Amino acid sequence: MSELRRNLAADEWIIIAAERAKRPEDFAAEQEDRRGLPEYSPDCPFCAGNEAKTPDEKVRIPGRADGQGGSWRVRVIPNKFPALAWDNRGPGAVERRCEDWRLWMPGVGDHEVIVESPRHNVTLSTMPPQDLALVLDAYRRRYLDLDANPGNELIIIFRNYGAKAGTSLFHPHSQLIATPVVPSYVRQRVAVGMRYFDENGRCVYCVLMEGELKDQVRLVAQNDRFVAYCPYASEVPFEVWIVPRRHDASFGDILPDEITGMAVILHQVLDRIATVLGDPDYNYVIHTAPQHSGGVPYYHWHLEILPRLTTRAGFEIGSGMSINTTPPEAAAAALRGEPPP
Amino acid sequence: MSELRRNLAADEWIIIAAERAKRPEDFAAEQEDRRGLPEYSPDCPFCAGNEAKTPDEKVRIPGRADGQGGSWRVRVIPNKFPALAWDNRGPGAVERRCEDWRLWMPGVGDHEVIVESPRHNVTLSTMPPQDLALVLDAYRRRYLDLDANPGNELIIIFRNYGAKAGTSLFHPHSQLIATPVVPSYVRQRVAVGMRYFDENGRCVYCVLMEGELKDQVRLVAQNDRFVAYCPYASEVPFEVWIVPRRHDASFGDILPDEITGMAVILHQVLDRIATVLGDPDYNYVIHTAPQHSGGVPYYHWHLEILPRLTTRAGFEIGSGMSINTTPPEAAAAALRGEPPP
Repeated sequence: MSELRRNLAADEWIIIAAERAKRPEDFAAEQEDRRGLPEYSPDCPFCAGNEAKTPDEKVRIPGRADGQGGSWRVRVIPNKFPALAWDNRGPGAVERRCEDWRLWMPGVGDHEVIVESPRHNVTLSTMPPQDLALVLDAYRRRYLDLDANPGNELIIIFRNYGAKAGTSLFHPHSQLIATPVVPSYVRQRVAVGMRYFDENGRCVYCVLMEGELKDQVRLVAQNDRFVAYCPYASEVPFEVWIVPRRHDASFGDILPDEITGMAVILHQVLDRIATVLGDPDYNYVIHTAPQHSGGVPYYHWHLEILPRLTTRAGFEIGSGMSINTTPPEAAAAALRGEPPP
Repeated sequence: MSELRRNLAADEWIIIAAERAKRPEDFAAEQEDRRGLPEYSPDCPFCAGNEAKTPDEKVRIPGRADGQGGSWRVRVIPNKFPALAWDNRGPGAVERRCEDWRLWMPGVGDHEVIVESPRHNVTLSTMPPQDLALVLDAYRRRYLDLDANPGNELIIIFRNYGAKAGTSLFHPHSQLIATPVVPSYVRQRVAVGMRYFDENGRCVYCVLMEGELKDQVRLVAQNDRFVAYCPYASEVPFEVWIVPRRHDASFGDILPDEITGMAVILHQVLDRIATVLGDPDYNYVIHTAPQHSGGVPYYHWHLEILPRLTTRAGFEIGSGMSINTTPPEAAAAALRGEPPP
């Protein structure tokens, strides 16, 4: 028998329907084999040695003093085909244009690529956590820089891993898009957090994290700075949230030792996902408060990892509700290396 | 240069970024070749002759009097692995259960399959419109029957065509799910329609349809009952909406001659999509008002067709906003068989 569970942070129901659940090994058998890729690919614009194929960089984290591993470790570059770009346009470009019944505005904003390593054939789950900390620090630096432009209303940092997650480029990279509007989808989640705060005097994400720590069954990993769990109302099989213990609405406020703690737990979780599920495609997204609301008590930045093991179909598209065939309790047990509950 | 366009019916921005747009023939070249399938497949549970593989049927539209084409033309059956099922549970099953911080309820509802033809190798774009009208009438009959259960709050009828759209079963079929809750996603759209109505005294869908008829550039087809167009703020390439000219909030109110008109235009649009884009995978969904709000002036039922030509990635997942690489003006021109504008 299936059940509906309420996602208190999104005010949405999800359906847990385990009748047709696949085992982790069934998911694993369906995945692409990415082993055997070369360390350098001549056609790859992100490989060390091919820097001329990309626009001028915004950030370069230099290589090690001993010269080992090349001249840089992380680069951030503008996207060559940006979805949004300021292109020297000023604040006037964010004004809405109304023509008859059509409402539009120019596509201003920022779209950048974070190249996570000079090497083609590594990825976050195989890189040492120290290198991952450099990637997270590059996120932070770009976040703060773009946050200083008052025309940017939201900064979304995300990673598409594999073709099912929307990228055909294997070289390890993530992306950042700054939008000149607050998407309604985000505004709605902020409003849910606000209402919960007004009712209960607490941040709903703090409450959910404490609940998961108390229940234990959905925990995947934890350290002194972060908790990782498959949320009670997971939308997709093996969804994992990584949530900072310290309440803060904005990713831009991340502290140096939080970067270290996040690198460790992110590496750990991605490694478990790759091991248990056969290196599946996934997206991750850093959810953070819109600009001008960094200090609010009712939103809590966090990272959501969504493996692409199943396909969103007509019901999900039409209703906004998800049908999840793997209960998060079973997913978390598998990720911890334990038998199903 | 990209632009942001406002979807007035969802209160959301979408990004039209045509820099990396593919031509229709590029999309077509990527599609699966589904020609050469047999008329009957021994393993298919939906083929004529294999009726014993499925649960008892809810609707059977009998075959032609002359016996041509078999003993039935459309069947509706319960889904063998339902996401939601009443299973003889009464109205008490819709009560919410709160355990500590976890809010849930049993997975009650209905989940049915509409088998659209006894033949394995046809589909809506190759079936004659008269047969399609029988499918739409089966939708209507099941809608009204399930709407009579006060525990069902929303009825979603949808079609998944092809693996990218979430089905591995080729035999022509659609599905229906009745949910015991109104999804927030739907509630939000109803609220947008309500606010628009309160501000402007008009149904936003009527206003958008009139705007599209006036602008013409995004029209795909029309008849005396329905208008088909690629909406101004299309979320995905070649998205098409089929909207009844007569304002009505609920699909359950569809009139007999509207079924005929809808069958004609749906066949026409799906045929154009298959021809121009190489028979791509797609989802369609009938959007209709939640139960108890059939007569409202602020919602307008319609069908949305979403070809699965691109992949939803981290940005879309995290922001709820879409990046659409094909302007709807170009999509509509291609579907009309005209050169790009």
